[in-house]
Amino acid sequence: MRIKGKNYRSVWMEHDSIKIIDQIKLPEKFEILELINIDEVCDAILTMKVRGAPAIGAAAAFGIALVAFTSAESEFYANLKKAKTALLNTRPTAFDLFYAVNKVYKSMIKTNNINNARICGLKESQKFADENVAACRKIGEYGEELIKNNFRILTHCNAGALATVDFGTALAPIRIAHHNGKNIFVFVDETRPRLQGTKLTAFELAEENIPHTIIADNAAGYFLQKGEIDMVITGADRIAANGDAVNKIGTYEKAVLAKENNIPFYIAAPLSTIDFNCKSGKDIPIEFRDENEILKFNSIQIAPTKSSAKNPAFDITPSKYITGIITEKGIFKPDEIIKLKENK
Amino acid sequence: MRIKGKNYRSVWMEHDSIKIIDQIKLPEKFEILELINIDEVCDAILTMKVRGAPAIGAAAAFGIALVAFTSAESEFYANLKKAKTALLNTRPTAFDLFYAVNKVYKSMIKTNNINNARICGLKESQKFADENVAACRKIGEYGEELIKNNFRILTHCNAGALATVDFGTALAPIRIAHHNGKNIFVFVDETRPRLQGTKLTAFELAEENIPHTIIADNAAGYFLQKGEIDMVITGADRIAANGDAVNKIGTYEKAVLAKENNIPFYIAAPLSTIDFNCKSGKDIPIEFRDENEILKFNSIQIAPTKSSAKNPAFDITPSKYITGIITEKGIFKPDEIIKLKENK
Repeated sequence: MRIKGKNYRSVWMEHDSIKIIDQIKLPEKFEILELINIDEVCDAILTMKVRGAPAIGAAAAFGIALVAFTSAESEFYANLKKAKTALLNTRPTAFDLFYAVNKVYKSMIKTNNINNARICGLKESQKFADENVAACRKIGEYGEELIKNNFRILTHCNAGALATVDFGTALAPIRIAHHNGKNIFVFVDETRPRLQGTKLTAFELAEENIPHTIIADNAAGYFLQKGEIDMVITGADRIAANGDAVNKIGTYEKAVLAKENNIPFYIAAPLSTIDFNCKSGKDIPIEFRDENEILKFNSIQIAPTKSSAKNPAFDITPSKYITGIITEKGIFKPDEIIKLKENK
Repeated sequence: MRIKGKNYRSVWMEHDSIKIIDQIKLPEKFEILELINIDEVCDAILTMKVRGAPAIGAAAAFGIALVAFTSAESEFYANLKKAKTALLNTRPTAFDLFYAVNKVYKSMIKTNNINNARICGLKESQKFADENVAACRKIGEYGEELIKNNFRILTHCNAGALATVDFGTALAPIRIAHHNGKNIFVFVDETRPRLQGTKLTAFELAEENIPHTIIADNAAGYFLQKGEIDMVITGADRIAANGDAVNKIGTYEKAVLAKENNIPFYIAAPLSTIDFNCKSGKDIPIEFRDENEILKFNSIQIAPTKSSAKNPAFDITPSKYITGIITEKGIFKPDEIIKLKENK
C-alpha cells in the first residue's frame, strides 16, 4: 500500500525482529513498531496494534519463527510449544491465526536443531506472508470485474492492506478498479466500537486518493434504501464450510439490509480464512471484548458509571445473505466453496 | 422522571423563562439551563441541548409564549411572526415542533393585545406540555401490556422522559413494566453519531435502576439473531398517514433486522407526532447534520483530515416493518392510524 508516497506492507520480518505498522495510532500518527520477542507479538495482537485476520496470521507466523532467534538452544523446543500456545490464545475468531501458526510450527518442530528450525521458520512464515499478498492481488483482480464504472460501494470495518499483508481483501478490488481508471465511490462504515472504518479504511483510501465518505454504521441502511449503493464488499475473519461468514460486528446487519434492498453482498477472503472443520457459522467462536470499548472513548467515560456494556466483536452472516465469496481462486457462491477444500 | 432521587420534567416554564435539562452535558453533568429569549430557545434546539420530538415541541411552544414576555408591546406581533419562522427553521424532521408552534402561535396571533397574548400563549404551551405528559403516561400503560415478564427489549436512541416532557414514548412502557414489578432487561443501542443511547437512555434507566446494557449499534443484529431480544420499541420523530415512521438514523436497520428474525417491532409516539399531510415516509424531509459529528469526537479529529462524512440524522422505516404503533389512544397497526385523524 502507498502511505505518504512510499510502499508498505502492514507486517514484515527484518533481520531478527518483526516490524508492524501501529494500527492503534492511525490515522493521527504513522509509526512502525519493532517486536523483538513472542510476548511483544502476543501483546500487539491482543491490543490490536496489528489486526485483521490475515495480518494477525502473518504477525503470528513471524512470531513463531522469531522463537528460533530469541531462545537458548537448550530451551528452544519447549519455548516453541509455549509460543504456539500463547499465540493461539490471543484471539479466538480469526482463522488465519490458527492456520498460519500451525503451518509454521509444524515446519519447525520436526527439525532436529535450532539452526534448521530458524531456516524452516523463516521460510514458512515468509511464504505465508507472500502467499497472502499474492492471494489478495488475485482477489483484487477477480473482484474488480464485479465493479462497474460509477459504482458506489459500501464496506464495513477495515479489510484493506492494513488488515492483510498488502492490497487487502475487500479493498483489493476497489484499489484495482480505481487504479484501472474506473470512477468509483466508497461508503465507509465507521465501524463502532473501534472505528476501524474511520481510522483505517478511510486512511488507506485517502492515502491513495480513492473517493470516499465516512458514514455512521446506522446510516448504511439509509443509503441502501435510497438506492445510493450498488454493491457491498467486506472481508471475513473465518468462513465455515457451508459458506457462512464470521466478520466484524455489524456485517450481518449490512448483509441483511443489502438483501432486503436487492443489492449484491460479497465477502472477499483468501483460502486461509476458510475453516473446513467448521460446518456452519454457529461452530465459530465469537470473541467478546472489554466493555470499556463502548463505555469509554479515548479513556474518557462517556456512559453513566452505573451502566454496563456487552461487546461482541464479530457476528455470523449466514450464507443465504452472501451473493458470492471472492477468493484467489475465483468467485464462488457460498455453497460452492466446499470445492476449494482440496486446494488448501 | 427521577434524577438523583427528585422528579423532573425535561423542559418547563418558570415565571418568565424556560428551564431545560441540558442534554449535551449528560450523563457527566446534570445541569438546568435557563432560556430567556427566543434566540436562546432556537440555539438550544439547534445544538440539541433539548432534543427528542415532543421535548423540542414543548420547548418551542414555551418559546413562542415567551415572546409576549420579552417584547415591547409595539413590536410584539412582528416579533411573534419572526419567532415562529425562526423556530420552524431550527430542525426540519420532528413533527411536534410544527404542531406545537402552530398551535400556540394561532392562539396568540388572534389576540388584540400583548396581555391577552401572554395569557393565551402560557395556557396553550402549558397545555401542549401537560397533554404530552398525559399522552406518554397512556402510551406507557398501553405499551406495558405488550411486555411479558422476563422480556428483553431493544431500544434505539433516546425516546425517554428527556426526549418528551416526562415518562417518554418508547421508555414509558419499559418504566411502567419495571415499576409494576416485571423482570425486564433493556438493550440500549449506543446510537451513533451522537450517542443518545449511551448518554441519555442509559442515564434514565440507571437513575431508575432498570436493568440494562449498552451495545454498539452494530451488535443489535447479533443479539436479535441469537434470540436474546424479545421485542424492539423506538420512538418516532414524524409518522406519515400510511404508518411509515421517521426516527433516528439506524431505526430502519433495526426494524428490518427485527422482521428478519420474527421479533415484534413497535413505534411509540403521541398523536402530535403523526403528520396526516404526509402521505408516506418519502414526503418527510430528512435532516443532514454537520459531518464533524462523525469526523470528530469531543472536538478531537478522529478521521483522516482528507476524509469527509455524510450524516443523515433520521431514516424512514416503511410501515411493513412495524408491528404496531403505541399511542395514547391505544395500539394500532400502521395502516390503522389514519383512523386517528379526527382525534387530532
